[in-house]
Formats: sequence, C-alpha cells, structure tokens
Amino acid sequence: MSAARPTERSLIELIRRAAPPAAGVRVGIGDDCAVLEPSPGSVLLATTDLLLEDVHFRRRWARPRDVGWKSLAVNLSDIASMGGRPRWALVALACPENVTTDEAAAFWAGALDLAAEHAVAVVGGDTAASPHGWAVNVTVLGEAVRPPLLRSTARPGDVIAVTGVLGRSAAGLALLEDPDAAGPLGAEARADATGAHLRPRPRVREGQWLGAAGGVTAMIDLSDGLATDLGHIVEESGVGTRVELQRLPVAASACAVAAALGRDALAWATSGGEDYELLLTCAPDAYTRLATGLETATGTPLTAIGEIMTADAGLRWTDASGREIPVGPGFEHFVTGRSRV
Amino acid sequence: MSAARPTERSLIELIRRAAPPAAGVRVGIGDDCAVLEPSPGSVLLATTDLLLEDVHFRRRWARPRDVGWKSLAVNLSDIASMGGRPRWALVALACPENVTTDEAAAFWAGALDLAAEHAVAVVGGDTAASPHGWAVNVTVLGEAVRPPLLRSTARPGDVIAVTGVLGRSAAGLALLEDPDAAGPLGAEARADATGAHLRPRPRVREGQWLGAAGGVTAMIDLSDGLATDLGHIVEESGVGTRVELQRLPVAASACAVAAALGRDALAWATSGGEDYELLLTCAPDAYTRLATGLETATGTPLTAIGEIMTADAGLRWTDASGREIPVGPGFEHFVTGRSRV
Repeated sequence: MSAARPTERSLIELIRRAAPPAAGVRVGIGDDCAVLEPSPGSVLLATTDLLLEDVHFRRRWARPRDVGWKSLAVNLSDIASMGGRPRWALVALACPENVTTDEAAAFWAGALDLAAEHAVAVVGGDTAASPHGWAVNVTVLGEAVRPPLLRSTARPGDVIAVTGVLGRSAAGLALLEDPDAAGPLGAEARADATGAHLRPRPRVREGQWLGAAGGVTAMIDLSDGLATDLGHIVEESGVGTRVELQRLPVAASACAVAAALGRDALAWATSGGEDYELLLTCAPDAYTRLATGLETATGTPLTAIGEIMTADAGLRWTDASGREIPVGPGFEHFVTGRSRV
Repeated sequence: MSAARPTERSLIELIRRAAPPAAGVRVGIGDDCAVLEPSPGSVLLATTDLLLEDVHFRRRWARPRDVGWKSLAVNLSDIASMGGRPRWALVALACPENVTTDEAAAFWAGALDLAAEHAVAVVGGDTAASPHGWAVNVTVLGEAVRPPLLRSTARPGDVIAVTGVLGRSAAGLALLEDPDAAGPLGAEARADATGAHLRPRPRVREGQWLGAAGGVTAMIDLSDGLATDLGHIVEESGVGTRVELQRLPVAASACAVAAALGRDALAWATSGGEDYELLLTCAPDAYTRLATGLETATGTPLTAIGEIMTADAGLRWTDASGREIPVGPGFEHFVTGRSRV
C-alpha cells in the first residue's frame, strides 16, 4: 500500500495487474484499443477517452464545435492506430448549467461533422450538468478488418516510420495560449498550426491502408508525443530504438511558429504531443513499398526516422553525426505543475 | 438557433435528430443501451455513463472504493434493463493531482469487485489529472441473449411492475448528506439505506431472467426515479399510465429513515432516483408467472404497481380510493439550483 502520488504509467500497470484474464478478450488494458471477440470470428475494437476543460482544452480558445470534433478525433485515432474501421461512438457530455442550447448543439455538430466523414454513427451517450467546466467522454467501437496492429510486436532491425508531419499541434497550442506573441507570423502557418490543435484529422484511412498492406509490425498513434509514444512501443515490445533527429518530418508551420515565438520546433516534434499521426515499425524491405503505396492511396507521406534495436540499446536519439542527444518525454499526466494545455 | 438553457430531454432530442440512421444500428440514442450488430446475427449492447464529483457523489461520504463500484454499477444496470449479459467495461478516471496511489487503487478495487461478481472484464480505459475533483466515465458492452427489451414497446392494458423495493437510495443520500440528523435510527436501516446509495446492486441476473422468460413487453432501469423513468416508457411507447401509490413497494429502511428525519418515504419512492431496480411492463396474464418465477430464480420480488393506458390518459397517480395525486418528476440535470447530490 502506498500514499505516494501515482504516475499515469503506474496507474495503468496497477489496473492491468488487478484485472484478471477473461474470455473473449484478445488484448486488454495497455494498447490503444481493447480487442474483443463478441462472437467467434468477429473482432471488435473498443477505446475510450475523457477530455476535461483546462486539462485538454480551454474554453477561451476552443469553441464547443472544436471540442465536439476533437473528443471524437482522439478516439478515431486510437482505432486508426490498430488499422481498424471505426463504426460507432458513444458520447457523454457534462457542461456547466449556464450552457446555451446553441453551445450544446455546436458541440454535437462538431462531433457529427467528423463522424460523418468516417461513416461513424453516434449511437448513445449521457448528459449531465457539471459544476466545474466541460467534461466529455467518447467511446468508439470499430471493426478489425485484419489482425489488429499492436504496440507490442516491433522487432529489432525494423524501420521506424511516421505518417505526415510533426510539431503542428504543439505549435498551434503555443499560438492559442499566447495569440499576440507571434507578431507578423503568416496567416497560413497560423491557421495550419491552430487547426491541427483544435481539429486534428485522425489517420483513419491511412491506418486501414497500412493494416491491409502487410509488412507493418507494430503501430501506435502519436497522442502523448513521439518520445512518450515510441517509449510505449519500446516497453511493450521489449526492444530499444535509435531515432535520427534530422530525419524527423518537422512541419513547416511549426518551424514558422517556432521562429516567430523564439521556440524550438524540433522539441515540439519530439515531445509536443497531440499530432495524431501514426508511428509504425516495419521490416526494412517493406518500407519503400509502404511509403510509396500510402502516398499514392491517401496522399499522406510516410517518413523513416530510425530503427528498432535490441532492448539493451535503450531509447537513443542521435544527430546527423551519430552523436547522442538528450530528448525529454512528451505529455504525462500527474507530473506536478504541468497540465496538458 | 437558441440561447436558451437546454433540458436533459431537449439535449437528447437534439442529438437524436442530428444523428442520421446508420448501418448496423438496431437501436440508437434514446434507450438504456445502443443495440448494435457488429456482424450478422451478433447483437451487442453498449452504454456509457459519466459521473462527476459534487454532481453524482461527494468525496465527503463516498470513498474511492464506493465510486469505483457505483460507476460500474450504473452501467451494468443499463445492460440489465435490456435483459442483456454484460461482458466488458472501459473505465476512464480523472482525479486530482494530489490523489494517492492507495486512493486510485481503491477506486479500481471497487470497480473490479463488482466486475468479478458479474464476470465482466475491464479491458481498457484512460487516466488523466483533473483540476476539479473526480470524474469517472464507464462504458459497458454486453450481449443481448434474446431480443433486447426496449422502452418503446409497452402496450395499453399491460401491467406495470417493479423489482425489489423503492426509496432506499434517496433515504441513504439524505442520511449521508446530514448524518447527525437521524438521531436514534437503527443501525440496520441506516446501513441498508446508505449501502443502497453508495453500492447499488444492479439487477443483472433479474434482467437476464426476465428477458429469457418471455412476456415482458418493455423494461427500463430506475436511475432518475420512478416518475421520470416511467415517463420515458410513456413517451417512447406513446402510451399513458395509472400507478396506484399504495401499491408501491416502499423499502422498510426508507420508511424508518423518513420517520427519523421527518421526511416522506413515498416521495423518495416515486421521485428519489438511483434505486437501480427494474421497471417493466407485461401482459396481465404473464404477471403471476413472472413474479413467482423471478422470486424463485433470484430471490427478488416483483410487484405490480399499475397499468399502461392509452396515451390520452397521461401519467396518472392515484390513492387507494382512485383519487388522483400530483407527483413530481425525479432527478433532472440542468434544472437550475438542483444537483444530483
């Protein structure tokens, strides 16, 4: 027994140990989704995320429509990370008693906009009054059209690759938190970065394509930041990694925002979180086929950023000369004095 | 568009209208559970509930272990109300940064205690820090072993019946809110009432038995209070009702607590909420078979309390002489100045 403060990781481990193995559960706590077998041969993915005002967003800059969109998006991203097809969503919303019908309707419109893009049906939910700001929980159920891609199956020698570009969401958050600081920043970079933070586009089509293509050995979505999420693959797969920082596809908008604010775009790319890109590992001889095929099929680039090593290598980040560079972790709940926004 | 304050009902209607019909959805928003078809012939029930500190419970009297138990219980009750078999739960917990590992462990132990009783596996979840007290969301997935029992299928002439006894939870809440007020109240009545509020026992076995028995035409669980929940059956089925107040099975403990506090046990039974008993309708010639069979199979009594009328009758409450008595609704979110606890 302990009166110590828990970490997010220690909480998850605590639950994992306490929850006994059960029938119909292929994958339980510890991956992006649970993998369930409601009936023989039918494989269901299930994921849930709780978003709180002033932890995950601020009402000062996130409109109800953005909150509705994003609360669904982060769950669709979990389904995408397993290569699945999202089908149904349950949405629970608690908002302050002084919320207007227009604000509530805007929240639902935001969620339904994104649901419609991915043919997801909102099939249930819950509403309540909240004494302390907005609280939203979304659960998404999906189909695993192929064997789901897990975090725990990366192998030494695999290439590490990432979809899209990195650092946009953290750059957007920096702008939203201090909108006057960036001075003459171009409107396009501003819109790209803030849009990525407020309305992330989950890589659902990309996830399904990658799941079906074959050759991907492990996959996760980038919610907590590259350093933390790669750490999950390392831990669950029992491997090490080497990532070459100069190969990271840092977003042009993140570079522009960083220059305007005097911040470090590379740090946003490694540790900023909420990019909702897919991070995957694959056999070296599959990489070119996957990168070319994904871009052709979806328009989304795939970039190799490093390789999986044996566990003794740990989690290494190197510059162009191979010199090791220290990189901090991404977002972690329960780290005193730090909150997500 | 409207700047008016929404009601819980108006919010649900708003979502229902906005969410288009979709493939694989037998029942969407508006019943206790969504009824889904992940694959042909396989029927999945899904339900979600968000519980907030100072709305649904107070940390002053609800220990973490109670919160864990109850957050799962209210969802199991939704599965029970459709006659289903709960299988899997996803649990999202946000708690203040100063929570201890022991408190977090106690929350999970409470949820897992109840999960084990019903062979439910906790398969996933989410953890976050919260700036404003505890927030818990639980989603439960279950199997519909027979066609699920809905709210919308009651027919004029049906008997209205309820499992167990009523008013215990509201009596328990009154004691928890003002523990010194009840003076010489017996320990047994006190424990029965507060136990019912802190650790409700969802009628899962009863729901499955009733679903399998045949003859039940509609069912719902009593979460918001008999008046409100019967109102849901009335509205969804397009019927009216007449309930005889003297037939309500008011709990002995509720009567004892009411006497000690100078309160009205009958009002707790009609409008108190959170009893998590099952409210059902059945053909008159099925009632005796169901009542006898349920008590034999599960030990839980079933009591007839009134009958379903045509819609023009409205929602009538009568005393022993047939005289109409006004009864207020149960709990409603978004009613200014009133919160659940």
